[in-house]
Amino acid sequence: MNKKNIIYAQSGGVTSVINASAYGLISSALEDSQIDKIYVGINGITGVLEGKLFDLTKESIHKVNNLKTTPASAFGTCRHRLKEGDEEGFQKLFKTFEDYNISYFFYNGGNDSMDTAHKIDEYSKKIGYDLKVIGIPKTIDNDLYGTDHSPGYGSAAKYLAISMLEASIDTRSMAKDSTKVFIMETMGRHAGWLTAATSLAKLNEDFGPHVILLPERIFEEDNFIDKVQKEVNKNGYCTIAVSEGIRYKSGAFVSDMGYTDSFGNRQLGDVGRVVANIILTRLGLKVHVSIPDYLQRSAGHIVSKTDQAEAVMVGEKALEYALDGISGFMVTINRLSNDPYKIEEYISDDGYGVNKDFIDYAKPLIQGESYPIYENGIPKYVSFPIEDR
Amino acid sequence: MNKKNIIYAQSGGVTSVINASAYGLISSALEDSQIDKIYVGINGITGVLEGKLFDLTKESIHKVNNLKTTPASAFGTCRHRLKEGDEEGFQKLFKTFEDYNISYFFYNGGNDSMDTAHKIDEYSKKIGYDLKVIGIPKTIDNDLYGTDHSPGYGSAAKYLAISMLEASIDTRSMAKDSTKVFIMETMGRHAGWLTAATSLAKLNEDFGPHVILLPERIFEEDNFIDKVQKEVNKNGYCTIAVSEGIRYKSGAFVSDMGYTDSFGNRQLGDVGRVVANIILTRLGLKVHVSIPDYLQRSAGHIVSKTDQAEAVMVGEKALEYALDGISGFMVTINRLSNDPYKIEEYISDDGYGVNKDFIDYAKPLIQGESYPIYENGIPKYVSFPIEDR
Repeated sequence: MNKKNIIYAQSGGVTSVINASAYGLISSALEDSQIDKIYVGINGITGVLEGKLFDLTKESIHKVNNLKTTPASAFGTCRHRLKEGDEEGFQKLFKTFEDYNISYFFYNGGNDSMDTAHKIDEYSKKIGYDLKVIGIPKTIDNDLYGTDHSPGYGSAAKYLAISMLEASIDTRSMAKDSTKVFIMETMGRHAGWLTAATSLAKLNEDFGPHVILLPERIFEEDNFIDKVQKEVNKNGYCTIAVSEGIRYKSGAFVSDMGYTDSFGNRQLGDVGRVVANIILTRLGLKVHVSIPDYLQRSAGHIVSKTDQAEAVMVGEKALEYALDGISGFMVTINRLSNDPYKIEEYISDDGYGVNKDFIDYAKPLIQGESYPIYENGIPKYVSFPIEDR
Repeated sequence: MNKKNIIYAQSGGVTSVINASAYGLISSALEDSQIDKIYVGINGITGVLEGKLFDLTKESIHKVNNLKTTPASAFGTCRHRLKEGDEEGFQKLFKTFEDYNISYFFYNGGNDSMDTAHKIDEYSKKIGYDLKVIGIPKTIDNDLYGTDHSPGYGSAAKYLAISMLEASIDTRSMAKDSTKVFIMETMGRHAGWLTAATSLAKLNEDFGPHVILLPERIFEEDNFIDKVQKEVNKNGYCTIAVSEGIRYKSGAFVSDMGYTDSFGNRQLGDVGRVVANIILTRLGLKVHVSIPDYLQRSAGHIVSKTDQAEAVMVGEKALEYALDGISGFMVTINRLSNDPYKIEEYISDDGYGVNKDFIDYAKPLIQGESYPIYENGIPKYVSFPIEDR
């Protein structure tokens, strides 16, 4: 029997557990007698296009094991997307596959990456190259099609819930004669999953958040100001989670940075500051603003054990599927109670919170704590030489 | 022997371990046969002034034990400062002491609180009230007089170092065709201890920060832009920690937006965003900004075990001192190698980093990890009813 070679690559925005999926796939592949070489595309598909691969089979098992608890992308990612009809791109890609005798390609990413994986699968069939292509899901945004939730969301949700809890206790401590309102800005431009996750802070004690501003709801300033004042009157303070993607009725983002990124996406940021200034101006209350930004998606120091276990599992399953001859599919996570869900169904009547169904949905995803190994007082994360850009 | 009563109160900005000091004091006092009632001033000295006390002796030992791992202030703090000659204030205060038959007063805070404690001690001597007053140090800013470092700094330093490490790995992952520069804004308006602490991220691998902007150094835009470009060229990306308090040569804060609002208040922006816009404008690089704000001083989910142990210890020592008849003093932490230090001595020659002496100073303070108890996937922090404001 001929042994087969693998390429694995990571794409798009990172998560705390994307490397746990790499660990699941790679550690299984290292033990599988059908697999010979395990290559990694440096910076996602761009590394594969340019023939910049990294031979993981040469690395120590210690480094591979350490992937499990290392956040962000150990091999670099990219925003590059293979477009239909990009014949030159596909030819370059399959040249690499041929050069390295690749039978299996695994792409770990979000919707854009799944689209790229799908196109690679179609192209392989068109040219008659025997390749199995499997997608491995990953995104903190929880907006992946066809799966109950995606690895990465649970850990980001846990980080945000804990951070909101801690900042709420802080604000409560100081509210007597200092800050009365605290705002935390979360990622999740198009969907409120991350913002909603801050409500998990209330699981043990009702510290907050008292208001959440979701991108699914129009931002109505007068109504919002009334709500904040009511919460301050009731609790002595008010904590707020706001999605970076909230909009006015006109459709304009409440905060628009005024430029677009390489995908043509409008760049947003600091909506927390905009909302703070509205509160300061209209209510005259002292406001503090936190913008965790990347910290919420790379917080390897506090990872959901459930999320990590699922991330490892989808990596392992991806190999299993490929070895079974499946191609052009993404590994999904299904819920046994298979009620369809939409975030709309989880929003409270006044639009400033979530209902019990959301808590029932999200609570299982943040269960358990995984901690990294520490050395010198900081985590010992693993690093691979990807600087050859 | 008559048993004695205690008042303990917390003041000023909170830390992750101020309640650990409360735990140290209270758990020792509960076991001491000389102590009867243990009262807590709700919202610091203002609660004592208004006779708003909380009888901790009635609480379960479980709740007291849980104080050890609960961040921020479990009993509320205040910014109120007793002023010299505020005869009415002192009379109200000593009325409470008399009403509750108080022999010992413990004030847990920063420089302002130590000043208040000092004045209370002097006033007690003036009026002949037998009171022992002991200060318990606390601040994340590390700017307390007379002690090598203060409880709270080590945990904030650890949180910032870990966050910088994780965001650096994130930025490195994405730098190929997305964000090239990451900025984290830290607290510490007048001293660079917290900003400098991010350099501890480099203890295990050199991920960054590549540049730190300290309030002890004038912000020179041209020179800074050169430095950032050099770091991007060298590493493929650049991570930066900036103190909220950096200034231009003129003395103006970099965060000063240059105008006043309709109320005549000088508008201060987020310095991280200001610096990001300078980089975007001059170098055309994509920049992400994180502003942890309160998260850095209330991160009970990852506390320095060393810091926590010291916080407990200063609480225990405070009781010991008071029972020994000492008054008008603050518990301090001395370093056995008693070299005097100033942060100036720790800044690297180019002003954009720290030297090895700083690492030697700060590394011991972040050693060990203390985690809280979790329930439902989030920390089970203890809460006391302080809402009666």
